[in-house]
Amino acid sequence: MRTIDWVNEAVEIIDQTALPGEERVLRLHTVGELIAAIQSLAVRGAPALGVAGAFGVALAARIHLDDPAALNLAVQRIETARPTAVNLARGARRAAALLPHGPAAVLAEACAVRDEEIAASESMARLGADLVAELCGARPRLLTHCNTGALAAVTVGTALGVVGELHRRGRLAAVIASETRPLLQGARLTSWELTRWGIEHRVAVDSAGPFLMARGEVDAVILGADRICANGDVINKIGTYSHALGARRAGIPFLVVAPESTVDTHTATGADVEIEDRGSAEVTAWSEAVNPAFDVTPFDLVTAIVTDRRVIRVDRGEKP
Amino acid sequence: MRTIDWVNEAVEIIDQTALPGEERVLRLHTVGELIAAIQSLAVRGAPALGVAGAFGVALAARIHLDDPAALNLAVQRIETARPTAVNLARGARRAAALLPHGPAAVLAEACAVRDEEIAASESMARLGADLVAELCGARPRLLTHCNTGALAAVTVGTALGVVGELHRRGRLAAVIASETRPLLQGARLTSWELTRWGIEHRVAVDSAGPFLMARGEVDAVILGADRICANGDVINKIGTYSHALGARRAGIPFLVVAPESTVDTHTATGADVEIEDRGSAEVTAWSEAVNPAFDVTPFDLVTAIVTDRRVIRVDRGEKP
Repeated sequence: MRTIDWVNEAVEIIDQTALPGEERVLRLHTVGELIAAIQSLAVRGAPALGVAGAFGVALAARIHLDDPAALNLAVQRIETARPTAVNLARGARRAAALLPHGPAAVLAEACAVRDEEIAASESMARLGADLVAELCGARPRLLTHCNTGALAAVTVGTALGVVGELHRRGRLAAVIASETRPLLQGARLTSWELTRWGIEHRVAVDSAGPFLMARGEVDAVILGADRICANGDVINKIGTYSHALGARRAGIPFLVVAPESTVDTHTATGADVEIEDRGSAEVTAWSEAVNPAFDVTPFDLVTAIVTDRRVIRVDRGEKP
Repeated sequence: MRTIDWVNEAVEIIDQTALPGEERVLRLHTVGELIAAIQSLAVRGAPALGVAGAFGVALAARIHLDDPAALNLAVQRIETARPTAVNLARGARRAAALLPHGPAAVLAEACAVRDEEIAASESMARLGADLVAELCGARPRLLTHCNTGALAAVTVGTALGVVGELHRRGRLAAVIASETRPLLQGARLTSWELTRWGIEHRVAVDSAGPFLMARGEVDAVILGADRICANGDVINKIGTYSHALGARRAGIPFLVVAPESTVDTHTATGADVEIEDRGSAEVTAWSEAVNPAFDVTPFDLVTAIVTDRRVIRVDRGEKP
């Protein structure tokens, strides 16, 4: 299963708004369709967004072959379809750098972005599983937040890829998936992936995580990132920060797993990142809401960041 | 509006499972109906549960007038209908102590429990508003969790009563109500009450609270309790603890408002309290869930507890 791919001259994605009720594949033929899929979260997750950005430019390069102005505008619209994850703009720009060489070169670069994310997932799974075994012993009980599985990448995933690797090694005792309000990426997507992988798990409301840690029912928190800043601050799905506070108070490791493509050393700290507010309707039909889709976890709450190339021991003063 | 009352030989409650869509009054004629209403959360909130327990015994005293064994069993079933809030068993026992004097005496005692909760609400509103003004200045922005309004008591409420009092005094700048998964007492009930009182507010997902505090958008957290232990540990709706962690990190006051009837000096610490798990179905239809309905906030995270009789400055070493 690939969450996103280039198939017969179009971008194909698994529609994540329809899961777990329905496994539906969407074929996106235009830049407008691709942007709508990104903004509705039909495709989501930092690594997958990087691939979507690159494939989006590949689409634009074919459609606007003879109209440089329209092409530039399309690239810009793709880059800015969502503001927080660095991968989207970065993937789009990588593909756009090949525009002078024509649509075939752009598509080849987009496919390279995809292939690198696949390779990165496999590498993170190994490095992350080694680190969890080192920090948490033989059979840890892990808590994860949002969805960081194959659905957030192309295959395998980031933090959930580590969970899967530990399961394959027989080194996993239990998983709690926090539901991840408002759109329930944990209860809908992570639970669906874990079930497909044959991994027993329980879902919890987001605010239960810190209490379950305090009760001694969790050995480590492991989750993903949408952007990692130069100082080690982690931007990730809303609720990440409260889980980090809970992990700190419980004295358990707080582990972030994300590819190098999510590390943004051009952004100094979390305060410099635009946090998308997705409006009231996602949260409640009965009143106004404040709905930040992401939060900032200060680096001092992070034990380690695992990328596809390295383990950054933030707790020992190492920086991305 | 009274959330719960004795009307024409029956217990009348506002059905909180139907709000905000429908304002429906339930008439409860039997102990079984009352217990079902308690367990489905048609009536909920520690003070309201105390009144429900007392009225339940008044019902039982009439129904089982000539059958002491059945009467004792009914009292026991009421006391244990839910385990965490101390008020339920305490209200039932207060009324049950009058059983030797006949049903009229039991009912009179139950009405006294009701009237004391009404008086307690009014007193807490004043004391709490004074404390918030002292700690947070002229026009604070408050975050509250779960529902602690009239629906959780008989009238007025606990923490939300304080919010209402600040609004009446013209000393309230903004309110964020956390939605309170899984049953959305914040998004459904608190929002409904605030709207009726004409108080502008925004709802947030529970895990956004600590981040909104970190961003400097909240001046204090104010919420209720289901049980306050001798050492100052606070048992309250799941999510309370993570909000306390957020308040501590942000350096803002964390205020608990609850009547003396919720203070349980016979329970030493939070570790001694049975935390109700309400099962998977409330959380998700797609997998198993762990669903603790309450959590324990250690006393060292609490700034102050406001009851109807006193302000306990837990941050200064005072104990309940």
